[in-house]
Amino acid sequence: MSETKTAHPLTVHVPLNGGRGYDILIGRGLLGQTGARAAALGARAAAIVTDENVAALYADGARASLEAAGLRTCLVVVPPGEASKSYAGYAQVCDGLLAARIERGDLVVALGGGVIGDLAGFAAATLRRGVRFVQAPTTLLAQVDSSVGGKTGINSGHGKNLIGAFHQPRLVLADTASLDTLSEREMRAGYAEVAKYGLINDAAFFAWCEANWAGIFSGGPERDEAVAICCRAKAGVVVRDEFEHGERALLNLGHTFAHALERLTNYDSARLVHGEAVAIGLALAFRFSARLGLCPGQEAGRVANHLALVGLPTRLQAVPGGSGDADALVEAMGQDKKVRDGALTFILARGIGASFIAPGIDRAEVLAFLKAELGAG
Amino acid sequence: MSETKTAHPLTVHVPLNGGRGYDILIGRGLLGQTGARAAALGARAAAIVTDENVAALYADGARASLEAAGLRTCLVVVPPGEASKSYAGYAQVCDGLLAARIERGDLVVALGGGVIGDLAGFAAATLRRGVRFVQAPTTLLAQVDSSVGGKTGINSGHGKNLIGAFHQPRLVLADTASLDTLSEREMRAGYAEVAKYGLINDAAFFAWCEANWAGIFSGGPERDEAVAICCRAKAGVVVRDEFEHGERALLNLGHTFAHALERLTNYDSARLVHGEAVAIGLALAFRFSARLGLCPGQEAGRVANHLALVGLPTRLQAVPGGSGDADALVEAMGQDKKVRDGALTFILARGIGASFIAPGIDRAEVLAFLKAELGAG
Repeated sequence: MSETKTAHPLTVHVPLNGGRGYDILIGRGLLGQTGARAAALGARAAAIVTDENVAALYADGARASLEAAGLRTCLVVVPPGEASKSYAGYAQVCDGLLAARIERGDLVVALGGGVIGDLAGFAAATLRRGVRFVQAPTTLLAQVDSSVGGKTGINSGHGKNLIGAFHQPRLVLADTASLDTLSEREMRAGYAEVAKYGLINDAAFFAWCEANWAGIFSGGPERDEAVAICCRAKAGVVVRDEFEHGERALLNLGHTFAHALERLTNYDSARLVHGEAVAIGLALAFRFSARLGLCPGQEAGRVANHLALVGLPTRLQAVPGGSGDADALVEAMGQDKKVRDGALTFILARGIGASFIAPGIDRAEVLAFLKAELGAG
Repeated sequence: MSETKTAHPLTVHVPLNGGRGYDILIGRGLLGQTGARAAALGARAAAIVTDENVAALYADGARASLEAAGLRTCLVVVPPGEASKSYAGYAQVCDGLLAARIERGDLVVALGGGVIGDLAGFAAATLRRGVRFVQAPTTLLAQVDSSVGGKTGINSGHGKNLIGAFHQPRLVLADTASLDTLSEREMRAGYAEVAKYGLINDAAFFAWCEANWAGIFSGGPERDEAVAICCRAKAGVVVRDEFEHGERALLNLGHTFAHALERLTNYDSARLVHGEAVAIGLALAFRFSARLGLCPGQEAGRVANHLALVGLPTRLQAVPGGSGDADALVEAMGQDKKVRDGALTFILARGIGASFIAPGIDRAEVLAFLKAELGAG
């Protein structure tokens, strides 16, 4: 872990009330500061929760940093992949933290991607009815999305993230150098969430992405800038609507489709990872909006073209092994948390940067759209 | 379920902020009003979570009441006993609620004793990151203690209630007629928590209990009155200190000992139920206070005498199969949630109705006290 450029990380503050405000720090080499930052929070012990892949790359360094700062440490390692976001994975993490006698004043450090952040965050939310935690996201997806905002959780056989809690981290350490070890596929998957912020309400940022995406992938200064822009956008939404009574649902642009796709592919990351599902979901949300006459067809085309240019899938037919038929997709959407009294809520768009919450969408409309999409293959 | 006397149940309001205030209704036959009360909360569907024993007695009536009020219902039944407050029991309840498509606007009704309230409450706290729930406690212990205040949770192999969440109910329906079907042992166990409120800070109530306990057991008007007094006392503490940063810890009078005893008897209710452990813990807390010179010995004697009079155990030697030795007890206390940096926090007393929080108690003092207790057998 290089310390280069860590003297002045980019900082995004999340000004939540009740003394729960926290900073998101963004920069290369920040994992080397884990210990100093944890000590500044007054912790005497810290448990690093991570997966086997991330442990091999970053656990020793983070642990050494914590111990150099005088903290007692322990390490809880789960298998990599979505399957750890299960009841069994949750029990394993909780019991690991209890065996290490992690107490209310200590810290849980979620070191890894979105799976680890959600799983370790949920364990922290519920261990002794709540201990403090630090997000140390090591994937682009986690840095721009899941590590910010306090949503934590696990999956059930009935669907993704159906069990969980709102529990805000005390600090987010986004070490952008850790993305250097990601596969191209994981970078692309995270990039779908980056593009999403432009599509929601920032057309200028989407245009900036169209011009600068290569710098994000190669690790130029565009990467830190993009992460900071996304975190700032997400922090703003979270502060205005922490518990998703309204505006926060906009962050789910593309996700109603994505969650159904992930469910029908059994969360099998060999076939589909979350960001790929989101890319398809974004393209579908815009084409559905165009079909409903809400959005110009050329805007939907521009969205799909950019996602395809960076190598992301944009059609149901791109799912290896198939996405399931239209009926199965609509049925799978019925388990989404945004369901109210059986009606489906979608995030739709009047154009790039102009998305909105559309409750009460008729299932028959969705079904007809998906049948047309699958027929168009 | 008789409707007798339900026209005017006793009401205790819990004035929490943020629109989270709720009523505790106390009276005979209140379960027959479950449907009307749920409908008044605007719910369209309700899931009753209960255990096999309670289901046989009260599930049909509660369900019929809900359906008569126009709600869609489902029933999730777990085995009776503390063993259901486990990761596996939690997964079973969550999956049962998801299979029934319980949504954010629906209600989870916890129908049963403390195990059901804690388990169903934790499932409600975390299902879709939080759905509303109603406590319908059917044991004295649950009516005066666990159903009020929003503590929910499950046990780990490392200890009791180590996993959980704060999640306030929207309503508590304490049908005191449901206590008519309790065993004498369960009534006595609940009574330990009733007496506790007097011991904490209400000497007059303890004296009232000494004079009126038989009416509580027989189901006279003293029962409703005692439940209301206990709920009012607990509600006051919860409103002043919802998340147990201070005063709320007083409610744990006797519980540091009790939790250690329950752990060492493997939560085996054939040997020891929670209220019995609390009775021993209350007697120990007063004798420990006396040993430390804080409390007159005759006050400790009066406490133990009253508990013994109603048939509760007051000594470690009363635990069938033994309580474990002093070292094991102190070790088991080390996993208590009230641990801060390894020091033990006890609730001690200067007399009946004069308890206080005593942080930083020396382990060696506790050990010597327990050795003396065990030697005195």
